[in-house]
Amino acid sequence: MENKRNNPYRKDFPLLDCDPVIYLDNAATAQRPGCVIEAEKTFYEQHNANPMRGFYRLSVSATEKYESARKTVQELIHAESPEEIIFTRNTTESLNLTAYSYGLQYLKAGDEILVSVMEHHSNLLPWQMVARQTNARLKFLECLPDGRITEEQLQEGFSDRTRLVAIAHISNVFGRVNPIKRIVSMARERGAAVVLDAAQSVPHIPVDVKELGVDFLAFSGHKLLGPMGIGVLYGRRELLEKMPPFLTGGEMIQSVTRTGAVFAELPYKFEAGTVNAAGAAGLEAAIHYMKKVGYEEIHRRETELTSQALSGLKKIPHVHVIGSDLPEEHAGILTFTIDGVHPHDISAILDGDGIAVRAGHHCAQPLMQHLGISSSARASFSFYNTENEVSAFLKSVEGIRRKMGYGDEPIL
Amino acid sequence: MENKRNNPYRKDFPLLDCDPVIYLDNAATAQRPGCVIEAEKTFYEQHNANPMRGFYRLSVSATEKYESARKTVQELIHAESPEEIIFTRNTTESLNLTAYSYGLQYLKAGDEILVSVMEHHSNLLPWQMVARQTNARLKFLECLPDGRITEEQLQEGFSDRTRLVAIAHISNVFGRVNPIKRIVSMARERGAAVVLDAAQSVPHIPVDVKELGVDFLAFSGHKLLGPMGIGVLYGRRELLEKMPPFLTGGEMIQSVTRTGAVFAELPYKFEAGTVNAAGAAGLEAAIHYMKKVGYEEIHRRETELTSQALSGLKKIPHVHVIGSDLPEEHAGILTFTIDGVHPHDISAILDGDGIAVRAGHHCAQPLMQHLGISSSARASFSFYNTENEVSAFLKSVEGIRRKMGYGDEPIL
Repeated sequence: MENKRNNPYRKDFPLLDCDPVIYLDNAATAQRPGCVIEAEKTFYEQHNANPMRGFYRLSVSATEKYESARKTVQELIHAESPEEIIFTRNTTESLNLTAYSYGLQYLKAGDEILVSVMEHHSNLLPWQMVARQTNARLKFLECLPDGRITEEQLQEGFSDRTRLVAIAHISNVFGRVNPIKRIVSMARERGAAVVLDAAQSVPHIPVDVKELGVDFLAFSGHKLLGPMGIGVLYGRRELLEKMPPFLTGGEMIQSVTRTGAVFAELPYKFEAGTVNAAGAAGLEAAIHYMKKVGYEEIHRRETELTSQALSGLKKIPHVHVIGSDLPEEHAGILTFTIDGVHPHDISAILDGDGIAVRAGHHCAQPLMQHLGISSSARASFSFYNTENEVSAFLKSVEGIRRKMGYGDEPIL
Repeated sequence: MENKRNNPYRKDFPLLDCDPVIYLDNAATAQRPGCVIEAEKTFYEQHNANPMRGFYRLSVSATEKYESARKTVQELIHAESPEEIIFTRNTTESLNLTAYSYGLQYLKAGDEILVSVMEHHSNLLPWQMVARQTNARLKFLECLPDGRITEEQLQEGFSDRTRLVAIAHISNVFGRVNPIKRIVSMARERGAAVVLDAAQSVPHIPVDVKELGVDFLAFSGHKLLGPMGIGVLYGRRELLEKMPPFLTGGEMIQSVTRTGAVFAELPYKFEAGTVNAAGAAGLEAAIHYMKKVGYEEIHRRETELTSQALSGLKKIPHVHVIGSDLPEEHAGILTFTIDGVHPHDISAILDGDGIAVRAGHHCAQPLMQHLGISSSARASFSFYNTENEVSAFLKSVEGIRRKMGYGDEPIL
């Protein structure tokens, strides 16, 4: 059975290598490999200056590091050009930028914004704001209890008035890949823009913005083995170009007078103030590391661990896993409930055994309501987790109801 | 003469310790002491998890680090409570948040927004946006060519319709401390809010928000020896509480339904999405380091270096320094022009001698227009710079006109 000694990636992650924690909250944030931490350090020790603002060697070097990171992101998601890559703080800011600069500008009363019921609050609240301010109508795309979106639900969701669709590539509760190409094609027929929340997909599956055909795509560095404080918004150039800036200030202008400003070209128009160049350098290192591991290997390992966990959980009475029966349809995410046990208690008992899982509404309260639960527990696996860790997780879950005083339970 | 070997702080800054660069662009971004880089590394190696979202040990530990940083910021600027400290990405975002959430909400047609002519674009463009959207009037507070704001100019700037004043504590061109207490008192008489851009002050002088009486105050980590990607907005609780959130998404809600949300308490209402906890930990380390050095020592060293540079520059023909004649009124910032030499050439020639200074409009184009120049060069000193570095800078400046082909110049 694989343990931390024979998982070849384990040693690359300082926290996992030293700490006895069994970290199964990877969908909330990943651990960072040493090369990512080192890349930020190297930036500060060798290239640190305010990028783009200076003409001296050090500032040019900082700019080069920053733009190199942008190019690496562009290549990762197959964008047409680096100008379509905007660095933000996180997925949330990327989606808010889109809502403020595109949504408020191009949606109007009577238009429909279609969001799925499984959206993370980050891809719901900004559209509630847009709907409120523009009098557009917020409409929900429903899903089955296992997370599938049917053709019928799509037909019900879309209308002739649909002007924007905001949807997760992979839900952070189900872990299932949504039918984005079908959604894009239905959106295209109606001239609607598609905003993809890719926070949970880019860490797990190859993402090609041109092949998907989406207009906007958002993700975070920190879920992708990268640092906190750096995120990405991809936008189709044609749309980004016509959008007004969101945050204004230094570095996003061509010229300023007392009464107005001419804004800079893409991507700088959307990057006001001193950029997080060290964060970008860290994200670049993370992408290089991830590419070295490879999406195939990531998928293979995550599916193996998910398979082990899923079949284990299925054998434990009173445990209910949300989503697909197939381990490969979970992107490493297993959300579950246990009859009679509050998810916070699940998390606390697992924590007592040194196992970190998430409990709560997972920033997806409307989905919880849709599923008829108030909250759930979620274990999310990464390629650096091991079979031993999954076994320990199963063993701990198996004892939870007993610990809560439900009497003897059959042994796994 | 002090050189890097006998400057006691020099060894704390890895880049300066290894690199032969003479870094005089500290007003754009500071260098980072090793302890700051180490604090981010330690966060990722020992505490890394998504703060506030997990109930397990590691997430609790990440939350504690993050909240400890907030407390440290609160103490630094003497805010009433940690809830008044919002972590943002940088000063620019802090000011935009204020413009969107306070400005758009509480200003209306006919109101006057008073901004000084010396504002950084970050504290001007957001207010141009607010004026455009609300039909409030943007009015300028003038200043003398040396950066002083006179009582007469204040009287002309304020009116009975003044509802908001946006002003730099210290201009990034003059380096002079503006009369904030007088401005606050005039604003109070009219019920106007005061937004202070403290990006250039917090790194140099003690700042006490209660003593100043400002309503909002913004600064960046990266100018304060801290990491990039982390900034601060202080806001008076009473105002923050009544303001709507700016970015929406995860972690800033109490509950969400399909149609709306109840937002979280301060400070979380304004911190949507995964926070930059590692950046906050780095900022905390920077503040601790700075406090150890002490504002008195910082001021003493910066004034000494500025004094040496100012008297040296005054002796070089055709060089014109902008701002006060007194070195202690520069916060380490010396902005200057040389007759017949474009500031970009000044910067390029200095760079050839291994000296990093900024050239351009310093994100303050209206001020450049006010001063009748299109751009200028800026050397900005920190306590970790040395007399030797200032001498090298003066020697290089002294040769610039000769290198540009202006014939013999008197030797310094």
